[in-house]
Amino acid sequence: MGAMAEGGTRSTEVHDRREQELEFSRVVAFSDGVFAIAITLLVLGLEVPSHVSDLGQALRDRADDLYAYALSFAVLGSLWLSHHRFYGSLARFDSRLIALNLVYLAFVALVPFTSDLLGDYSGSTSAVVIYALVMAAISIAFGIQIRYAFRHGLVRSEVQPYARRFAGRASVVISGGFLISIAVAFVSVEVATYMWVAIAFFGPRIADALAGKRSPF
Amino acid sequence: MGAMAEGGTRSTEVHDRREQELEFSRVVAFSDGVFAIAITLLVLGLEVPSHVSDLGQALRDRADDLYAYALSFAVLGSLWLSHHRFYGSLARFDSRLIALNLVYLAFVALVPFTSDLLGDYSGSTSAVVIYALVMAAISIAFGIQIRYAFRHGLVRSEVQPYARRFAGRASVVISGGFLISIAVAFVSVEVATYMWVAIAFFGPRIADALAGKRSPF
Amino acid sequence: MGAMAEGGTRSTEVHDRREQELEFSRVVAFSDGVFAIAITLLVLGLEVPSHVSDLGQALRDRADDLYAYALSFAVLGSLWLSHHRFYGSLARFDSRLIALNLVYLAFVALVPFTSDLLGDYSGSTSAVVIYALVMAAISIAFGIQIRYAFRHGLVRSEVQPYARRFAGRASVVISGGFLISIAVAFVSVEVATYMWVAIAFFGPRIADALAGKRSPF
Amino acid sequence: MGAMAEGGTRSTEVHDRREQELEFSRVVAFSDGVFAIAITLLVLGLEVPSHVSDLGQALRDRADDLYAYALSFAVLGSLWLSHHRFYGSLARFDSRLIALNLVYLAFVALVPFTSDLLGDYSGSTSAVVIYALVMAAISIAFGIQIRYAFRHGLVRSEVQPYARRFAGRASVVISGGFLISIAVAFVSVEVATYMWVAIAFFGPRIADALAGKRSPF
Repeated sequence: MGAMAEGGTRSTEVHDRREQELEFSRVVAFSDGVFAIAITLLVLGLEVPSHVSDLGQALRDRADDLYAYALSFAVLGSLWLSHHRFYGSLARFDSRLIALNLVYLAFVALVPFTSDLLGDYSGSTSAVVIYALVMAAISIAFGIQIRYAFRHGLVRSEVQPYARRFAGRASVVISGGFLISIAVAFVSVEVATYMWVAIAFFGPRIADALAGKRSPF
Repeated sequence: MGAMAEGGTRSTEVHDRREQELEFSRVVAFSDGVFAIAITLLVLGLEVPSHVSDLGQALRDRADDLYAYALSFAVLGSLWLSHHRFYGSLARFDSRLIALNLVYLAFVALVPFTSDLLGDYSGSTSAVVIYALVMAAISIAFGIQIRYAFRHGLVRSEVQPYARRFAGRASVVISGGFLISIAVAFVSVEVATYMWVAIAFFGPRIADALAGKRSPF
Repeated sequence: MGAMAEGGTRSTEVHDRREQELEFSRVVAFSDGVFAIAITLLVLGLEVPSHVSDLGQALRDRADDLYAYALSFAVLGSLWLSHHRFYGSLARFDSRLIALNLVYLAFVALVPFTSDLLGDYSGSTSAVVIYALVMAAISIAFGIQIRYAFRHGLVRSEVQPYARRFAGRASVVISGGFLISIAVAFVSVEVATYMWVAIAFFGPRIADALAGKRSPF
Repeated sequence: MGAMAEGGTRSTEVHDRREQELEFSRVVAFSDGVFAIAITLLVLGLEVPSHVSDLGQALRDRADDLYAYALSFAVLGSLWLSHHRFYGSLARFDSRLIALNLVYLAFVALVPFTSDLLGDYSGSTSAVVIYALVMAAISIAFGIQIRYAFRHGLVRSEVQPYARRFAGRASVVISGGFLISIAVAFVSVEVATYMWVAIAFFGPRIADALAGKRSPF
């Protein structure tokens, strides 16, 4: 509401997190809500076979659904952890950051769909490409948020000197990895899938190694 | 609970937001919950094609689903931002405002349905009219909430002199725009759809221009 | 955790709400979450017709779905308001109240199913009876919670002298009304449905009139 | 963010709960969100029969769905209560505990699927085995969290001397009971199902009896 008093434009008014604790915690709670719902909706990708005589066999035939569930739960869980750490490091926020966060969440909320697709069409190049595209979009949208926060001094001052050097670097490595996996998917769908597990595990470590220090997120 | 002590009626007892922080934050958290769930349920409108041989083609055939998802995510996201700003400006609340908010949320929670409809029947006048009707109903219900809050002095005093002049104005412009788009839909479904994007982008700016000042919400 | 230190049993240890603010707010937030999810899942009862040529007609044929949605949204909304007021009046809580609340929520979470049933089989006695049974069960489970809270001194002292006289009375009237509507449904499904609207509007007022004072919930 | 300043590794940095209240409450709120969503999604296992003439009979034929709903609501409700008590006893947390919690939640979020399976294939050994496997996995993942918290001094000091003796004991009894029920399911599906109810009711009591004291969770 400070916009009018200060004559600022809507998108550039900056709120101190402590002064606007309710506002800030609503943004955080909304993001957590989207993550919690998306991660729990993954279960809808596990379809109950209808009217089969051998249930055990029918479920073993759908083992790919379970793999997609486990992969996507791990992916959304680690995205949430990073988001959690990033918002924990903010001292201020503005409405442009909230808008960037919404774009980021729009891709996060797509994961139950891409995961369901991957479970049902695990051998398909299209399913793998779409999964990787959404993951790359999430990484890029997260990287943009991080960069924006650093450039506009929204991050806590004690974090800034350390963290500026890494800002977005992990997300470049991770989104780059996902984009490369798209090319790989045209050669081998399976290798592309294994790449994602490698990205999830080693991506942050590679980014740290490149920067010579550990990323704060 | 103050009703009995004060002899007031249920609907007109006014609570100070700070004294009733838990109550107020429950209303806000409930609204955020409905928004977060509705925005995440949009993904259920993206259907996984069943048993197709060419997945890529099957998905391109369903590009309208993705357009409906993106549009509705943007719409629900910006509605949530406005709701967020509006509730941030409240100093007090009463149970009639909570009831008005429930009516507003009943229309918000319809969006995953109208969005799914729009994705599946994007060329259909009926689908476009229903989508626009729900959007107009949301705008009107939001405008009613804002007017009620101003008329009953629920808004913070430092906001009031500035904001009273705009109260509901944006929602009149926006709901008017959606109602006009219904008439347009009978001529051209596509033009009506483009109107929505224009409303989302320019609606608040037109309202500001009409008032000669920026709306606080 | 105080159980061991105090030698109490798990179910009778009483927590002061202020001392255990996080615990209390988790119970409240969990209940709000179930309400928000259940109210937003109602939209899944509105099915998008598949592959119809006249969408407008197909939707008019399903107007009952929309009626069930509106009714159930109003019902869940007013249940949430009552729950909200009741928990706002608590000074203390214990784990038995939390268990009673879980039983109550188990019936609340059934409403998206009974509402979907009502929309699809609106002329069916079975659908109306099941809807009314779940509503009666909710009212009874809420009444039990309220009585338990009063009998074990969990309600704020300033509320107690006023509220003790009404404790559960509204829920007796409301659950009684729903039980009567079950008998009515065997004669006329429509009359039973109209009874519910009357119960929602007049139930609390009748309870107030019987008690000679307004119920605090 | 303290990692860099203190030179610690990401997974071993320990946060005081009071100093990092927002962080801690986000983890708790996220867990509560997953529980609330999973428990409310159980209702999706109750399918509305399509186009039947005798609705009452069609629903009686699906009574197993309701049994699975009631059982799973009770199971998820009591899991949530235990999780609630456990996190209430924490004085500190670290990111490894958050990661263990995510693994635990990945199994919790599977319950709507296993419950749906159980309702649709209640006589099937496969459905019963899968249900029991997921329950055992939840118990084990919870036990691991509890052990980790005690071994790394994350539990409040006044709780520790009492609680250390029971750490994980209940989860050993409960997960053991579920694993035994898997063997039993190959002989009698019904006995296995009754075992679960017995485990839910008597499991914690048996664990208390073994330890000679009441478990704090």
